[in-house]
Amino acid sequence: MELMNAKGTRDFLPEDKILRQEITDKLRVIFEKYGYNPLETPILERFDVLSAKYAGGAEILKETFKLQDQGGRELGLRYDLTVPFSRVIASNKQLRMPFKRYQIDRVFRDGPIKLGRTREFWQCDVDVVGCKSMLADAEMIAIASDFFKSIGIEVVIKVNNRKVLDSIMREAGIPIEKREEAILILDKLEKIGEKGVRKEMAEKGIECEKMLNIVKSEKLVLDNDDGLKELQDLERFLNLLKVENFQVDYTLARGLSYYTGTVFEIKCKEIDSSIGGGGRYDEMISNFVGSGDYPAVGISFGLEPIFEILKSRQVKKTVVQLFVIPIKCLDECLYLIQELRDVGVNVDLDFNGRSISKNLDFVNKMGIPFALIVGSDELKAKKFTLKNMVSGEEKKLSIYGVLKELKCCGCIPHANSLDPLICPH
Amino acid sequence: MELMNAKGTRDFLPEDKILRQEITDKLRVIFEKYGYNPLETPILERFDVLSAKYAGGAEILKETFKLQDQGGRELGLRYDLTVPFSRVIASNKQLRMPFKRYQIDRVFRDGPIKLGRTREFWQCDVDVVGCKSMLADAEMIAIASDFFKSIGIEVVIKVNNRKVLDSIMREAGIPIEKREEAILILDKLEKIGEKGVRKEMAEKGIECEKMLNIVKSEKLVLDNDDGLKELQDLERFLNLLKVENFQVDYTLARGLSYYTGTVFEIKCKEIDSSIGGGGRYDEMISNFVGSGDYPAVGISFGLEPIFEILKSRQVKKTVVQLFVIPIKCLDECLYLIQELRDVGVNVDLDFNGRSISKNLDFVNKMGIPFALIVGSDELKAKKFTLKNMVSGEEKKLSIYGVLKELKCCGCIPHANSLDPLICPH
Repeated sequence: MELMNAKGTRDFLPEDKILRQEITDKLRVIFEKYGYNPLETPILERFDVLSAKYAGGAEILKETFKLQDQGGRELGLRYDLTVPFSRVIASNKQLRMPFKRYQIDRVFRDGPIKLGRTREFWQCDVDVVGCKSMLADAEMIAIASDFFKSIGIEVVIKVNNRKVLDSIMREAGIPIEKREEAILILDKLEKIGEKGVRKEMAEKGIECEKMLNIVKSEKLVLDNDDGLKELQDLERFLNLLKVENFQVDYTLARGLSYYTGTVFEIKCKEIDSSIGGGGRYDEMISNFVGSGDYPAVGISFGLEPIFEILKSRQVKKTVVQLFVIPIKCLDECLYLIQELRDVGVNVDLDFNGRSISKNLDFVNKMGIPFALIVGSDELKAKKFTLKNMVSGEEKKLSIYGVLKELKCCGCIPHANSLDPLICPH
Repeated sequence: MELMNAKGTRDFLPEDKILRQEITDKLRVIFEKYGYNPLETPILERFDVLSAKYAGGAEILKETFKLQDQGGRELGLRYDLTVPFSRVIASNKQLRMPFKRYQIDRVFRDGPIKLGRTREFWQCDVDVVGCKSMLADAEMIAIASDFFKSIGIEVVIKVNNRKVLDSIMREAGIPIEKREEAILILDKLEKIGEKGVRKEMAEKGIECEKMLNIVKSEKLVLDNDDGLKELQDLERFLNLLKVENFQVDYTLARGLSYYTGTVFEIKCKEIDSSIGGGGRYDEMISNFVGSGDYPAVGISFGLEPIFEILKSRQVKKTVVQLFVIPIKCLDECLYLIQELRDVGVNVDLDFNGRSISKNLDFVNKMGIPFALIVGSDELKAKKFTLKNMVSGEEKKLSIYGVLKELKCCGCIPHANSLDPLICPH
């Protein structure tokens, strides 16, 4: 038997998982700052929920992993976090509106495997239900803007409104039955250019010159248009929320047909595809529930492309900050490392009684930034040899000196702990 | 169609998920303090890996969810985190030993649903491979001790060694072919008492008086016994690591047959079953890999029982710390809340233009601790009305006064942020 991963899945070894956790931790902090609470839904869902009329649709069902439990019940692995979220709203009538939640979790799609596309991947979703104001839409864009600033990826958030697109289609004289098709082709303008759009429109028998003129015009004029008013409100709120990196793009549609108003997509120069996006879907949950009014807007960040971009920039190989090498004084070192751990330092030590040089080689290969060499002389003098593994420099330091060198002092929390360091001074 | 959860699965609404995240965050901090790095493996595994000879065994395969991908490949949902971990060790020969990793993640078992048992649940595993020293075993127990202290659950960690059990069986004259059975019955001593053990042993035709005398003796004497020496080393290391809440119990076996040395189980008074446990398995990974020497020891914490215990004690309903109620000054409030978010406060505000009393009712029902009422007079005076929703007390405060009241000042990180607050002073 070969010990292989299932096709389309992968492992994330420590240096990858450290980065993935850094990304999701930052998302959590920002989602919570904006007042969103976490939710957990299961990966296993009843197949009839996943295949409900107002759920993800026929295309996505083709890519849904299907299975049965012992009782012969039809189940599926969820393909997104929105359908389970809609089920939660529908079956928890006690929830107060607006309901603001985030979920950072796995989804599954049994689709073709292209570069960077796996069958098991993470989505980071934040949604609010029960609010019609464009303030909610603006908040989604502000969250995206804050997050990408915090992780140092320069992005442009393209914004549009489906109602505006509908009006453009109407003004351009596109027949109703061709509008959906025309919108999807227009959406590709940036990707395939005007020539490409003209060609695809022609193939579908759509006259598109007037449409192209409208979207290229400096200032879009549409009489008394709801979508345009929403877009103007949105822009006003974005300015008040101090968001600068958004751009209105009248061609943006996003594929999913369930959007009813605002749509947005996050672009960066590192990769062609979007690294997040979302929009307003005022009807989906109400349709799903079967009654009531559940206007909603949400955004989803793709962990996988964000991870790939950051991975190419920085690699931290370990959470360990200090590796202790005892020279015939293991017992005393155990005492010492517990004290360091108590003040929040991530410490490892030699378990196997290796030589100093073998240990230093290990520390180096593992990417641990500091090694502390402790012998009986050091213990007597209470001065320890701290080796900076990057610069190679060695210093004789007291234990507080060590903490200071590790930047674990002065109430500066260390890099990987979620808790603050309690300053030992 | 009824919008139901799949049988044996459940949702965790915000007040549950907040607590679950608090638990797993604390585990992460402690795992990392002890120098363990995170690992992510997929939920989907090849069925031949899950059913490999040295994997979980026939019993667990009966409870394994099985499915196929589009290409007809046989897959399964993992039933534990140890088998995928063994696969990672086997297929990444570049990994340096000792390899210390943790994983906090979901596993799936299609078993009978009893109280508190679900088909999709979380395990929190920490393991080290490549170390024979009892120091590694002691570290596992120290991690457990630290963690339960940090979350305020009083535990006793029972410790034993499989080799000691084997020696007891030998000394007690139990025939080799009955030893496995006898060990499993002896393991139930605490649960079913001496009477129960005698009865079960008799049913299996095992003479157990001598065995019971040995395990009841004040000090176990076994000549030149490896297991006893290991147990003594372990105790010595535990004392050096300042662990106090462990207890040697010569009857402890733990069910799994793959343990080769130390075994431990975490007990608390709140529930009958264990809330964590583990042990040394020096042969399993080597068998899995097919060659080489991969001694290993690990511990697994059950998120579900820990969650249930803590849930009965404390309920935090929301991560939101402050809810802002604008009275005809939404624009200014947007500016204000962004400033509060910038210093790390989790803020929400009224999206829907509700009245003050409706808003206060919402804030109260949501469990948000503070409400800030902002009108044009307040903006002019730069003094805002902060209402403590628990005490009902109202104060007129500057924005720094508000931060201080929220305990978000003086570099005290606020409750839910993973980042420290940058003090605005």
